[in-house]
Amino acid sequence: MHKAGLLLGGCVRSWKSVRMASSRVARRDPLANKVALVTASTEGIGLAIARRLAQDGAHVVVSSRKQQNVDRAVAALQGEGLSVTGTVCHVGKAEDRERLVTTAVKLHGGIDILVSNAAVNPFFGNLMDVTEEVWDKILDINVKATALMTKAVVPEMEKRGGGSVVIVASIAAYTPFPGLGPYNVSKTALLGLGKNLAIELAQSNIRVNCLAPGIIKTNFSQVLWMDKAREESLKEALRIRRLGEPEDCAGIVSFLCSEDASYITGETVTVAGGAPSRL
Amino acid sequence: MHKAGLLLGGCVRSWKSVRMASSRVARRDPLANKVALVTASTEGIGLAIARRLAQDGAHVVVSSRKQQNVDRAVAALQGEGLSVTGTVCHVGKAEDRERLVTTAVKLHGGIDILVSNAAVNPFFGNLMDVTEEVWDKILDINVKATALMTKAVVPEMEKRGGGSVVIVASIAAYTPFPGLGPYNVSKTALLGLGKNLAIELAQSNIRVNCLAPGIIKTNFSQVLWMDKAREESLKEALRIRRLGEPEDCAGIVSFLCSEDASYITGETVTVAGGAPSRL
Amino acid sequence: MHKAGLLLGGCVRSWKSVRMASSRVARRDPLANKVALVTASTEGIGLAIARRLAQDGAHVVVSSRKQQNVDRAVAALQGEGLSVTGTVCHVGKAEDRERLVTTAVKLHGGIDILVSNAAVNPFFGNLMDVTEEVWDKILDINVKATALMTKAVVPEMEKRGGGSVVIVASIAAYTPFPGLGPYNVSKTALLGLGKNLAIELAQSNIRVNCLAPGIIKTNFSQVLWMDKAREESLKEALRIRRLGEPEDCAGIVSFLCSEDASYITGETVTVAGGAPSRL
Amino acid sequence: MHKAGLLLGGCVRSWKSVRMASSRVARRDPLANKVALVTASTEGIGLAIARRLAQDGAHVVVSSRKQQNVDRAVAALQGEGLSVTGTVCHVGKAEDRERLVTTAVKLHGGIDILVSNAAVNPFFGNLMDVTEEVWDKILDINVKATALMTKAVVPEMEKRGGGSVVIVASIAAYTPFPGLGPYNVSKTALLGLGKNLAIELAQSNIRVNCLAPGIIKTNFSQVLWMDKAREESLKEALRIRRLGEPEDCAGIVSFLCSEDASYITGETVTVAGGAPSRL
Repeated sequence: MHKAGLLLGGCVRSWKSVRMASSRVARRDPLANKVALVTASTEGIGLAIARRLAQDGAHVVVSSRKQQNVDRAVAALQGEGLSVTGTVCHVGKAEDRERLVTTAVKLHGGIDILVSNAAVNPFFGNLMDVTEEVWDKILDINVKATALMTKAVVPEMEKRGGGSVVIVASIAAYTPFPGLGPYNVSKTALLGLGKNLAIELAQSNIRVNCLAPGIIKTNFSQVLWMDKAREESLKEALRIRRLGEPEDCAGIVSFLCSEDASYITGETVTVAGGAPSRL
Repeated sequence: MHKAGLLLGGCVRSWKSVRMASSRVARRDPLANKVALVTASTEGIGLAIARRLAQDGAHVVVSSRKQQNVDRAVAALQGEGLSVTGTVCHVGKAEDRERLVTTAVKLHGGIDILVSNAAVNPFFGNLMDVTEEVWDKILDINVKATALMTKAVVPEMEKRGGGSVVIVASIAAYTPFPGLGPYNVSKTALLGLGKNLAIELAQSNIRVNCLAPGIIKTNFSQVLWMDKAREESLKEALRIRRLGEPEDCAGIVSFLCSEDASYITGETVTVAGGAPSRL
Repeated sequence: MHKAGLLLGGCVRSWKSVRMASSRVARRDPLANKVALVTASTEGIGLAIARRLAQDGAHVVVSSRKQQNVDRAVAALQGEGLSVTGTVCHVGKAEDRERLVTTAVKLHGGIDILVSNAAVNPFFGNLMDVTEEVWDKILDINVKATALMTKAVVPEMEKRGGGSVVIVASIAAYTPFPGLGPYNVSKTALLGLGKNLAIELAQSNIRVNCLAPGIIKTNFSQVLWMDKAREESLKEALRIRRLGEPEDCAGIVSFLCSEDASYITGETVTVAGGAPSRL
Repeated sequence: MHKAGLLLGGCVRSWKSVRMASSRVARRDPLANKVALVTASTEGIGLAIARRLAQDGAHVVVSSRKQQNVDRAVAALQGEGLSVTGTVCHVGKAEDRERLVTTAVKLHGGIDILVSNAAVNPFFGNLMDVTEEVWDKILDINVKATALMTKAVVPEMEKRGGGSVVIVASIAAYTPFPGLGPYNVSKTALLGLGKNLAIELAQSNIRVNCLAPGIIKTNFSQVLWMDKAREESLKEALRIRRLGEPEDCAGIVSFLCSEDASYITGETVTVAGGAPSRL
């Protein structure tokens, strides 16, 4: 099969040679020697993703807005024997985005992976009630900062011959969560952002995909499920057997960043326990 | 059939009584006595929609950013015997949105229909090249102003017992136009905006739907098709027989605003000659 | 606008001249002189569509499997002053499909419109429980017969220079109805059928679109809503204010068959009161 | 994090305990001790999937319609040190489906994974040209046999407390391949089948997902790309940099069958190099 592939292609592409070497060894650490940035990664889904990328062999730089949260996450992950460092990063600030990039490059010589997870919290409110200030904040942090953070890493990825970006959107991008209008709209926008970035960055061998988690048990989402009765009614309405856990989102992100996903770009993977999303 | 419907329902809803009266007479002027605002309606798709709503019986208030364009459009449509007035409106400005609403209410006593068509022009550029200033402008005018314009008309629609909003998005929301990243993303966001507004406004009996035009021959899109060879290659790539014309978008908008569409909300209708969009 | 359109195009297409003549007169009877076949049209959604096409000016041939149902529907619609005839047609039988076509051609000289509404009833059961016999029947009637019925009318439409086909699918194509697996799958297949037929028939100037009704109050669907408590819980789950009525599906079908929809093909319009479907 | 998850849940689910044990060891062989059936797996995409599942630790039973193809594939995979056996299986025949199940159970004591890849070949033809016989064959093998094959393994999966099914659909389910109408429709139907099976089988802890490959270089698809010029034009039209290889589809299937995907069900993952599919 492999031989046939080579003969057919007529040209030896870099991803091919990598895959040829693919073996159980490679699969043990599918992200070995990769350098990954994960934003908003000191708790919840972001932390679970950072841990997993590191477990899969990557050097991970975690970040969020508060130094003490960064310190705690780094300590925890290093305590697990993982190659993790951290830096404060408010993704809405250009200097913070730059520092995150610089830190990764200085420590590890480059960047291969960006997982963009930052989102405004709290995120409640209807479109008809929201102030322009809150709307701007939600769209700026959830969407524009994702574009800008991507822009900041692209030159580094290009130096390495390619890379992978995963944007954390939400199932609410397809099926709105009630009472979260501006949040929902920002998540729909991210689906478009992912698709467009995938097209623009294909020539740089950078793949871009989205993750659309359902309702995951985190501090971020606890208003949705804190009450036991509410959790049960949610599960009924969403046709799911359980709420998700942050770890449910981690494996697929690692997969999307690995060589195994080298032909997947511009797509969104929904992780929502079977809740209604799209065909 | 009608009788059965009434017996079944057990409650006489307002839309029902309206429909009971539906006859050829009503269909001749499906929007008779309705008051409609159409933004960015002094040329292209917006003008075609304004004309059609007026032909179908509505009192239409056209608007765009320049007085002379408003004057020209109003003169042309009045010259066709239509009930059309106009006012300058830059949808990004709160006072302009308010004036548009006030004008309609003063002239016609209320508002039933909003067609939100405003979009930044020119709109070219990649996500990786765009400045924050241009990004902000595109998202503010194409998305936020649509939300705010809707917010401005809702109280008036509620006074009338309901209403209909149509948002002009684009097929690029599904299948990006090359080289128009920020525009494409803003259009994807509009799909989410429409769905969320539909949910929020259902209790006010206001329906919200989106239109997703394909490539329509307007000044706005002429860079896409000006060159004959480019037009042919576009048609080939999009699997279409011809480019669209503004009038192709007008009938469906009028339909979506009529009683005939009273059970259609939160949906997007694509008008693109068969170009690839979604399942 | 119209003038500009003509100058730009450089070629006068038939739909253009028709539209140029479009006026309030044309709109009174948008389907004047059109000949329409509607299958499974002696009650429910099919009957409402047949009535509406006739009200909008078409000569309509209704049909279903039983002569007495055909007779009753024809009598009712003729009693309303509409141009309606009927013939028995079991869409699964080649001779019946041929007779339907022949009848229309003999009476009215050709065929312009096909609305394919036939579906197996009752349709309950899980995929895991269904017998092969029932599966075959559902797929044969709901999907294959739609393809074959279309094939039977295409030559007649080609003689008239074009036509319009509307396939009645269901929102269950996107968001499955619980306990109706085979039905749901057949409806998803119809979305694909519509898209593929649109591509194949574009060269014959035949447009093909789908309708995806939500839960409509008919005999067909009454098990879903007969019980008042069940109806309320359905409405809650679907986020809708009321169940649909057959008439809710009629206007959009007439619209899709009219000149106003001449740039809409390969699309599905969902009529479901805001129930979750797709982005 | 893990501790919190346990405390919150209040019930120790089997997947949880498995995940708690998740470590680099588990990840080396994510499918260790799993028994997997893969239909149509003696060449192309099916063979690549079978190999990968085995590399990831599963006992794999390969199958296809011809004994010599089965023998060759088994010999090749065993020669790579993998735990692979095989049996002839024409998925359209009940006795063959039963034998496949029986073989797996006899050899390995049960079934955990089904990858349904069988499809009629050759698959060319338009909807308007296809005979009923060919239509029936395509729908029967591609869709009905997938449902029946799933039905055949469910009791065995239930005995093991759950399982995972992956159905190989196609990007043509969303964006039709020209000239392949019936094939395309069958693939759209599979998207619905996957979603419906996911709902029906959730209570048995069986997850069901679809794979939608783009154009993959196999014997099956070679008519699409054999000619170099045609390949280039395809790549241009699909906005992709290269055609896919069977291996591109293998990693994601293994992932979807692993514990890491325990919250992913009812979804479709597209593997198409960025070709237009859906939002």
